[in-house]
Amino acid sequence: MKGLFITFEGGECSGKTTIIQELCKTLEEKKIPYISTREPGGIDIAEQIRSIILDVKNKNMTEETEALLYAASRMQHLKEKVIPALEKGYIVICDRFLDSSLAYQGYARHLGMDSILRINHFALNHLPDLTLFIDVEPDIALKRLENRKKTDRLDLESIQFHKDVYQGYLEVCQMYKDRIVKINGNVELDVVTKNCIKYVLDFIKR
Amino acid sequence: MKGLFITFEGGECSGKTTIIQELCKTLEEKKIPYISTREPGGIDIAEQIRSIILDVKNKNMTEETEALLYAASRMQHLKEKVIPALEKGYIVICDRFLDSSLAYQGYARHLGMDSILRINHFALNHLPDLTLFIDVEPDIALKRLENRKKTDRLDLESIQFHKDVYQGYLEVCQMYKDRIVKINGNVELDVVTKNCIKYVLDFIKR
Repeated sequence: MKGLFITFEGGECSGKTTIIQELCKTLEEKKIPYISTREPGGIDIAEQIRSIILDVKNKNMTEETEALLYAASRMQHLKEKVIPALEKGYIVICDRFLDSSLAYQGYARHLGMDSILRINHFALNHLPDLTLFIDVEPDIALKRLENRKKTDRLDLESIQFHKDVYQGYLEVCQMYKDRIVKINGNVELDVVTKNCIKYVLDFIKR
Repeated sequence: MKGLFITFEGGECSGKTTIIQELCKTLEEKKIPYISTREPGGIDIAEQIRSIILDVKNKNMTEETEALLYAASRMQHLKEKVIPALEKGYIVICDRFLDSSLAYQGYARHLGMDSILRINHFALNHLPDLTLFIDVEPDIALKRLENRKKTDRLDLESIQFHKDVYQGYLEVCQMYKDRIVKINGNVELDVVTKNCIKYVLDFIKR
């Protein structure tokens, strides 16, 4: 592997999308070869899987099925897109990865971290080199969420679910201290973005 | 759990479908409450998942993704259909279950038995009470397969794949000696069917 695998994590409305866009502009300017992706990442099979997960009519999906579908979609995206790019030496910026499953399904859906690690064990050989967790207090995130149009099954979850996801992330940060860095996401998005870009550029240099 | 969970396993053209039909007629006659099913078993979410697996256009699906999709479909079918029926005291006759994943993905696709057990670990709490493996020599099965219309992605697999599946099943039988009984499937289907029905009825009585 010659490239670097860098992931962004955080709850709903943590600002990840904007931050990643700005980071990519900077990488572009600095002529650092990169790709930016998110599961399912335009990979046809992974998109088909994701559409089952997010379909509002699939309300009676079991937690176990949901977690396994995320793991399946992840592997297809990883093998078809992420690994080939890393092998070519690209920086791969990915919006969410395994840590999302740990926080959402493992903790908030009570499946247990260990269960999520087991069903994702194919992905454990391909953990990110660096993960930035955008740390936004649940109350602030929920205020932002109210202003957003609710579209898919996950947006319709209860307030408690989003709070549980946050607690889950704090545990994941504890589990992977060496890989995950917490970025304060409660301040203005401009500031968060600058801090993230600085951290990533320093990491790439090292 | 008041019911009994009985699964049938075997390679392509092992005669499982006919055997299960005849077994069900017998259970019907004896007024033994049962349901007969197979993954995805008419469970809408499981059907959606299965259709991704079997779609001929998804040729570049990774082995890991395939195995995870089978595990996802299995959990939905198990929780929506099998477990509720067992709780009501039914005999649940199921055409294929976890052992198929062990033989097909674990052994024949070289993912390893251990990997399959990990990603299916939610199902390990719900192993069958009895499994009948219809043991047909690969050469006999392949001769039967030639006469069948090839329709889905799995039917189009190479001869070597079907032979590997058979070897995989022999290993699975070894792993679960107490649960799996081998039924000689090389003789006439009438005889195989009678032997299976006798075995199941004796098991239900015990």
